[in-house]
Amino acid sequence: MGKQPKSAISPTRQDDYPEWYQQVIKASDMAERSPVRGCMVIKPWGYALWENIVQAMDAMFKETGVKNAYFPLFIPLSFMQKEADHVEGFAKECAVVTHHRLEKNERGELVPAGALTEPLVVRPTSETIIADAFSKWINSYRDLPIVLNQWGNVVRWEMRTRIFLRTSEFLWQEGHTAHASREEAWERTMMMLDIYARLAEEYLAMPVFKGRKTAAERFPGAVDTLCIEAMMQDRKALQAGTSHFLGQNFARASDIKFQSAEEREEYAWTTSWGASTRLIGGVIMTHGDDDGIILPPRVASAQVVLLPIFKKEDERQAVMAYTESLAKELKACRYNDRPITVEVDPRDIGGARGWEWIKKGIPLRIEIGSREIRENAVFLGRRDKPHHERVALKREAFVAEIPGILDDIQNTLFARALSYRTENTVTIADKGDFYDYFTPRNLEKPEIHGGFARSGWCGDAACEARIKEDLTVTIRCLPFDAGEPAGRCISCGKPGQHHAVFAKAY
Amino acid sequence: MGKQPKSAISPTRQDDYPEWYQQVIKASDMAERSPVRGCMVIKPWGYALWENIVQAMDAMFKETGVKNAYFPLFIPLSFMQKEADHVEGFAKECAVVTHHRLEKNERGELVPAGALTEPLVVRPTSETIIADAFSKWINSYRDLPIVLNQWGNVVRWEMRTRIFLRTSEFLWQEGHTAHASREEAWERTMMMLDIYARLAEEYLAMPVFKGRKTAAERFPGAVDTLCIEAMMQDRKALQAGTSHFLGQNFARASDIKFQSAEEREEYAWTTSWGASTRLIGGVIMTHGDDDGIILPPRVASAQVVLLPIFKKEDERQAVMAYTESLAKELKACRYNDRPITVEVDPRDIGGARGWEWIKKGIPLRIEIGSREIRENAVFLGRRDKPHHERVALKREAFVAEIPGILDDIQNTLFARALSYRTENTVTIADKGDFYDYFTPRNLEKPEIHGGFARSGWCGDAACEARIKEDLTVTIRCLPFDAGEPAGRCISCGKPGQHHAVFAKAY
Repeated sequence: MGKQPKSAISPTRQDDYPEWYQQVIKASDMAERSPVRGCMVIKPWGYALWENIVQAMDAMFKETGVKNAYFPLFIPLSFMQKEADHVEGFAKECAVVTHHRLEKNERGELVPAGALTEPLVVRPTSETIIADAFSKWINSYRDLPIVLNQWGNVVRWEMRTRIFLRTSEFLWQEGHTAHASREEAWERTMMMLDIYARLAEEYLAMPVFKGRKTAAERFPGAVDTLCIEAMMQDRKALQAGTSHFLGQNFARASDIKFQSAEEREEYAWTTSWGASTRLIGGVIMTHGDDDGIILPPRVASAQVVLLPIFKKEDERQAVMAYTESLAKELKACRYNDRPITVEVDPRDIGGARGWEWIKKGIPLRIEIGSREIRENAVFLGRRDKPHHERVALKREAFVAEIPGILDDIQNTLFARALSYRTENTVTIADKGDFYDYFTPRNLEKPEIHGGFARSGWCGDAACEARIKEDLTVTIRCLPFDAGEPAGRCISCGKPGQHHAVFAKAY
Repeated sequence: MGKQPKSAISPTRQDDYPEWYQQVIKASDMAERSPVRGCMVIKPWGYALWENIVQAMDAMFKETGVKNAYFPLFIPLSFMQKEADHVEGFAKECAVVTHHRLEKNERGELVPAGALTEPLVVRPTSETIIADAFSKWINSYRDLPIVLNQWGNVVRWEMRTRIFLRTSEFLWQEGHTAHASREEAWERTMMMLDIYARLAEEYLAMPVFKGRKTAAERFPGAVDTLCIEAMMQDRKALQAGTSHFLGQNFARASDIKFQSAEEREEYAWTTSWGASTRLIGGVIMTHGDDDGIILPPRVASAQVVLLPIFKKEDERQAVMAYTESLAKELKACRYNDRPITVEVDPRDIGGARGWEWIKKGIPLRIEIGSREIRENAVFLGRRDKPHHERVALKREAFVAEIPGILDDIQNTLFARALSYRTENTVTIADKGDFYDYFTPRNLEKPEIHGGFARSGWCGDAACEARIKEDLTVTIRCLPFDAGEPAGRCISCGKPGQHHAVFAKAY
């Protein structure tokens, strides 16, 4: 593995968390900034992770009757305006198409030409254009429910961007459903939130709080926004998926009416729900250490890398043959209902090779040299253990046990993340304690603060706003698992209506 | 199945092929025009077909070492201009983003605001932005080859659109590779063409000619464009996939240089290759009949529909139980390496139900009533047979044979399409015969002409252009399977350099 630096990534998380995040992505070769402002290039190692997340989500969606569909990238400006809160929420970040041709001007420069009669907005989300389709498709209660999902790209022109977490273009899924009753729409809103929570916890090994957003944090146009919130290692919260109960707001705005079984004309009840490539940022910040990314086995871009070692040229053939036959054997094994994904890296670049794979976060590294062949063994390094802690295993035993080993890593990552969150989540009843908790401990590293605080809130938006202004701390959610009574409002001291989770957030 | 109309789709293919195409899509519920000019909404039945095509292609790509990645939707105007032929080819159909915000004007109307310093083009294809990335990623021959693919949407502002065949936005994949040698790049260009041909023939049951495009029909910026061309039932050609050998054109334009093993600085050799939702149009026009779409089983949106029939309410429970247990049993069967996809349609809407599924083109319809339960049987209708030709089969026999039945349909569809193409492809040596062949037989139905003509061509662009002007017929490809000697040029009579396939085209 070559000489060990103190840690592979500089700076460390402790020294400069935001810069660590940029460096860890660079070192993993997952993605990079593009020359287009605020947009990213997702490279194969990052995209493979996204493909696995997509596959897991898509399968869970389909189990509940979701069908995929595809709607246009462009939304007529007039559609955006139909729901007042909605357009208000998105107007400041809309990319607008105004022309459909390029022409040379008199100086020979290419300029936009063919002005459109009505400008088109590049979708920041598709509620309005899908509502328009629903209004045409739905006539009777027999046409309901409609339960669709779209995989695609959206654009929100963000001023401050960070790869995966906040980019002007990102990949996501957006589900859109229409129902005959409030109850059914609400049930779907909750069902999809549960799927997001399962995805986060069971696949990404990222524990989440489930809850409702306050009015201030709600999706523009929604009656209620449900969310999952995860804790990153700088103890900030990441909103990792949202499920919106839209009530009849979009149905009214776009005239989605149906004749009920009782022959009354009624507005449909709609929902929408989305999760995005932001989840990749969540994986990185939940599990990464000062040596790089650590990928949870169930979604890892690849699960095992084989590293053949031949000191002398005459060893090469035997080592490569052993490596290739092991690769074949592993690919025939299944984990998490799919074939195990194996990389073979025969490059002769010394210790840098092992470190590259550590930085990429691959769960298992297998070294194979003449000794392993002699002993019919493998030399195994696990990404969840210190890199010098490697073990020799008999080949047969390793092949038989690999699903168990991967599960063990998956479980270890979840347990670590959960205990980190537990350590950094406190119930606070006293205002002074609350302000202390969210005041940076070390003014040179303002990123490091307390963590999550569970405190009472009176329900008044003014109290919420004051805390945000004083501490840049927001209510991440009103958690479903509140348990304890709400106590008094942490800001005004009046009796608490809600038990809230407060944190700084991405 | 209810009373039979003469045919379910009006007009028939013979009466008005273009209108038949629109009606057959409408009747299948696959897609519809959107309120956004030239864009389509792909509905679940159409999107499921696309998902299956994507899955088949993606697996074939990955077998050859392709990795997926994602590049920005937006391309800076300056990038588009780097390759002169390229920008020339796409300038007339580029959607241009000029603003990144919406603002209310003094009349309260929402208008574009926040003008961009440099306008952004919504990608019509991604050669230029990917070449920019390659130029940064590639330094040494050790960095090569790079073999990437992107699944996504692109926009080409078409003036005349037709669902699936030509839309302003469409879904596709675009592969982009860079190599150290001409030979390797050429090999990749051919390899991907072969994959498209396999996809078309083995999955879509659509026979294709493989060949090279002439200079006039080449991708803007390419040295060579290879293509697959299929014959639709109006005997027009559909270009169904293209693979471009870009030589060093884009490498020169974007400065993709590397140090060779011999330590010389050289330009890389690049390729690109794409296939799109246009393939769905090809499936429809290759196999559809006057009753609607016929889906090839290997990519069908679903393979079997179960239609429970209960004349009396007291039969319902038994029929539904039998139906559900059969559905479960079928879903546990595999076809083409995947579980069989089953729809259950219990709607009590009479004969319209069976016809809906015929129009959707589902390969197998299974009716289940009290008689079937009594006899432990199924009543089977195959979409490739006349709709009244249905057979009773023992349930066990049906379940055991279903993969064979689906294969039989798949093979029948391919054989039919191949014999149709063979019947309508002729070798023509005489100019008069050639002009007759491409002159509409019936002036009221100008869509119906001869078919494909295999004829000699001298290689002169002027001859090619004359034929295009006279007959709106183009050289679809210079086929790889030419076989016969080229003979004389069908236009000028000089010795033929090439054997060409001529046809009218979509």
